[in-house]
Amino acid sequence: MKLTVVKVGGKIVEDETSLQQLLRDFSAIEGAKVLVHGGGRSATKVAAQLGIESTMIGGRRVTDADMLRVVTMVYGGLVNKNIVARLQACGINALGLTGADMNVMQSHRRPPKRVTLDDGTEQTVDFGFVGDVDQCDGQMLATLIGQGIVPVMAPLTHDHEGNLLNTNADTIAGETAKALAPFFDVTLIYSFEHAGVLTDPDDEASVIPHITADSFEQLKADGTVSGGMIPKIENALQALRAGVKQVIITKADAIDGTQGTVIS
Amino acid sequence: MKLTVVKVGGKIVEDETSLQQLLRDFSAIEGAKVLVHGGGRSATKVAAQLGIESTMIGGRRVTDADMLRVVTMVYGGLVNKNIVARLQACGINALGLTGADMNVMQSHRRPPKRVTLDDGTEQTVDFGFVGDVDQCDGQMLATLIGQGIVPVMAPLTHDHEGNLLNTNADTIAGETAKALAPFFDVTLIYSFEHAGVLTDPDDEASVIPHITADSFEQLKADGTVSGGMIPKIENALQALRAGVKQVIITKADAIDGTQGTVIS
Repeated sequence: MKLTVVKVGGKIVEDETSLQQLLRDFSAIEGAKVLVHGGGRSATKVAAQLGIESTMIGGRRVTDADMLRVVTMVYGGLVNKNIVARLQACGINALGLTGADMNVMQSHRRPPKRVTLDDGTEQTVDFGFVGDVDQCDGQMLATLIGQGIVPVMAPLTHDHEGNLLNTNADTIAGETAKALAPFFDVTLIYSFEHAGVLTDPDDEASVIPHITADSFEQLKADGTVSGGMIPKIENALQALRAGVKQVIITKADAIDGTQGTVIS
Repeated sequence: MKLTVVKVGGKIVEDETSLQQLLRDFSAIEGAKVLVHGGGRSATKVAAQLGIESTMIGGRRVTDADMLRVVTMVYGGLVNKNIVARLQACGINALGLTGADMNVMQSHRRPPKRVTLDDGTEQTVDFGFVGDVDQCDGQMLATLIGQGIVPVMAPLTHDHEGNLLNTNADTIAGETAKALAPFFDVTLIYSFEHAGVLTDPDDEASVIPHITADSFEQLKADGTVSGGMIPKIENALQALRAGVKQVIITKADAIDGTQGTVIS
């Protein structure tokens, strides 16, 4: 049986027009499905309103105790529950989950880590209450999905010692897809701001339609693919090795999987 | 099979010491169980930090669009997910739910309503995004509970048209208990600030151990029970008529059900 895991960024779910489009598109996906969402912009906004400064290093949020409260409110409450209520109105039997719910996704707090900054220098960074995923309970998710439920996953996990941990939504999506691979034919769709993996970053029409493990090596070697795109594709290839059938990198308004870059 | 629905107020779950006690006591309850929580104090605090004023009329919160965002963050995210993570650490397979999740509890927005204020005058009040419950899916909850899951319910419902609605936690607990009555022998425990229904409001030792429908009429007639206690007991009697085995009104540190007032 086919299952689609769709990851959408915070930008999409935080704007009413793009959220409506997403809800329509997601509702139209045939077969079993899971939605994974971000919410970073709302978190930054609510944090600012509460007088809490957001610190990003290498594109990742530093999550101190105050910021953990904010992301728990925004990801687990505001964004997640609004999507769930909206999907219910579309006839989708959505269930909002963090990793703590039913122990679906367990993680451990990331130890301080050497990070290369934008200016090329290295620094050891303690990202705070940030989780690196240890396990995802695919059996439990598959049981729920078998009951007609559509999981909507917030980018929060827990350490099984009582602490919630902020966790990258791309990672949540990848781990979910991998954990469900033994039970379904899984397509993982990463939506982002571009139409796919581009040969020319300034030309949205230059989408590479198909990438394989072999062609990726070539694309890296000749410099066609570089920067932040490399870890994205490496994650996709890792998901394939773990049993996911295909990964599609595409624009948020094309989550039907007919456009973008297919990695298989 | 025995099932216990425990309702705890916001005060208990917002203070670290009382929360720890609650988690211990709740974990120790034998058999199937459901936890229903409030969170009003945190909502008021977060709202104030965001520059949003809390308006209470007749003990109920007026919920405009801004306040709905706050309670969605605080009840659905901050309070609910922290309790879930903490229960997981106690070995309880908790699942945080609003009424929108799996369409567990559907409501309609309360129309403007005549309310008697503290000064005795009447006023028509639009409480805003506040839900009066229409139905609770006991079958779905019973299925989850049969799988070893412990639902943790936030005081939020939805109208199945995409809107979340703020809903009184006592009501959530009562509706949950009633919906589960066909599947379990349900005990409903309302914890609050007193040791039970008191004959003397200034004497915590004056707990009435047992109230029935008949004795309640007598207690009302002779003035022993008055004020806010009357609707509480009326709700309890209504739950009994709907199949709940017993309702216990007790202090938050006595949710094992061995103390307080038993209504049966």
